[in-house]
Amino acid sequence: MPMNAPQFAVDAIVFDAYGTLFDVHSVSATADKLLPGRGAALSQVWRTKQLEYTWLQSLMGAVARKDFAAVTEQALDYALAMLDVPLAAAGRRELCAAYLSLAPFGEVPAALATLAPRPRWILSNGTLAMLEPLVHNSGLRDHLDGILSVDAAGIYKPSPRVYQLALDTLHLPESRIGFVSSNCWDAIGAKAFGFTTFWINRAGAPVDRHGPAPDWIIATLSELPALLAA
Amino acid sequence: MPMNAPQFAVDAIVFDAYGTLFDVHSVSATADKLLPGRGAALSQVWRTKQLEYTWLQSLMGAVARKDFAAVTEQALDYALAMLDVPLAAAGRRELCAAYLSLAPFGEVPAALATLAPRPRWILSNGTLAMLEPLVHNSGLRDHLDGILSVDAAGIYKPSPRVYQLALDTLHLPESRIGFVSSNCWDAIGAKAFGFTTFWINRAGAPVDRHGPAPDWIIATLSELPALLAA
Repeated sequence: MPMNAPQFAVDAIVFDAYGTLFDVHSVSATADKLLPGRGAALSQVWRTKQLEYTWLQSLMGAVARKDFAAVTEQALDYALAMLDVPLAAAGRRELCAAYLSLAPFGEVPAALATLAPRPRWILSNGTLAMLEPLVHNSGLRDHLDGILSVDAAGIYKPSPRVYQLALDTLHLPESRIGFVSSNCWDAIGAKAFGFTTFWINRAGAPVDRHGPAPDWIIATLSELPALLAA
Repeated sequence: MPMNAPQFAVDAIVFDAYGTLFDVHSVSATADKLLPGRGAALSQVWRTKQLEYTWLQSLMGAVARKDFAAVTEQALDYALAMLDVPLAAAGRRELCAAYLSLAPFGEVPAALATLAPRPRWILSNGTLAMLEPLVHNSGLRDHLDGILSVDAAGIYKPSPRVYQLALDTLHLPESRIGFVSSNCWDAIGAKAFGFTTFWINRAGAPVDRHGPAPDWIIATLSELPALLAA
């Protein structure tokens, strides 16, 4: 941490799940076994479409909205069509099942432990039926205090109705909630809502320009504990 | 047209502008002059982020929303940062100005002429201050009956509030409005709203999966007139 890094005063920490605590591209190995040489490409298109579909369905309104399990299947079907790779139903099921046991990024368990005793929550696009096995399978259950799904708001991030779920649960002022995401657009949405936000820029990407910049940018979750006021 | 192509009964036709009547990637030539060898890559990232930012700002709500001219500049700044290419202010202005004189796709003028006397309107994410010079500069003014901007709805496509603008203007039942877009997500949004929709699939892409499929898929606008009932 540079000497001039500020100290942020937050009383609870809320994490995005997919891409932030869990590596969505850990499905690549399963994909590559099923579709040799195409796993990484499939994973990339799959993830891109998955996010795009959450935004589009949210804008189209309740009539269009499917939950994240269904959106994940829709996006997989698009990716398979785009790469023009046939996949039997069993393979498709195996890929969707891989979303329930994504690998956490290596530094995550130790960093979460260090952040205690502050309450540590997940606020995710995923359904509870996806998130609960994921947290269990990854061994992170002991390091998290609770899970919030956007389903309770009926819309996806970055709608303010989603970030409101954390406020309603934690009963803290917006700025005393630290929000952490590897998705820059999610960190920007949370910042617009009023949270103190940290963008984990794992890929060295430029900051997005469509809203207020995150408060601080880190390369891995390991950098977060030292940034928080005691 | 295959013998079994249906005939669609519509009384007016509403077109998306960017990517549908006008080739957004016609900025590549200007970009390539300013940034030799990187024009196509810049144009691709620029367009991707431009759309992404319209969806994200729409979801974040009125506090975040900028008009399409501003979004186009935000997306250009991101694309320049991502490609890590420096560009002086004059070059940046030249690229943004190129959006006011995008080239129409080659078949567009003749196809629009054939579609008369049905009312032919544009419904676009662009501002009127962008769309009016674009229509003028491209010589399409005589082939169009009017222009609607999403700005009147205060949100971007595919919000149903945007498609409602066409309904309020044309005073027709939803299904009697033919909606044409090269952006599959836009055709799907219009279909969910109730329009009869045609997707111009110029790139041979798979159909998107997040909502109701367009009524018909064509490769260029030239195919449209023969699909419409007299």
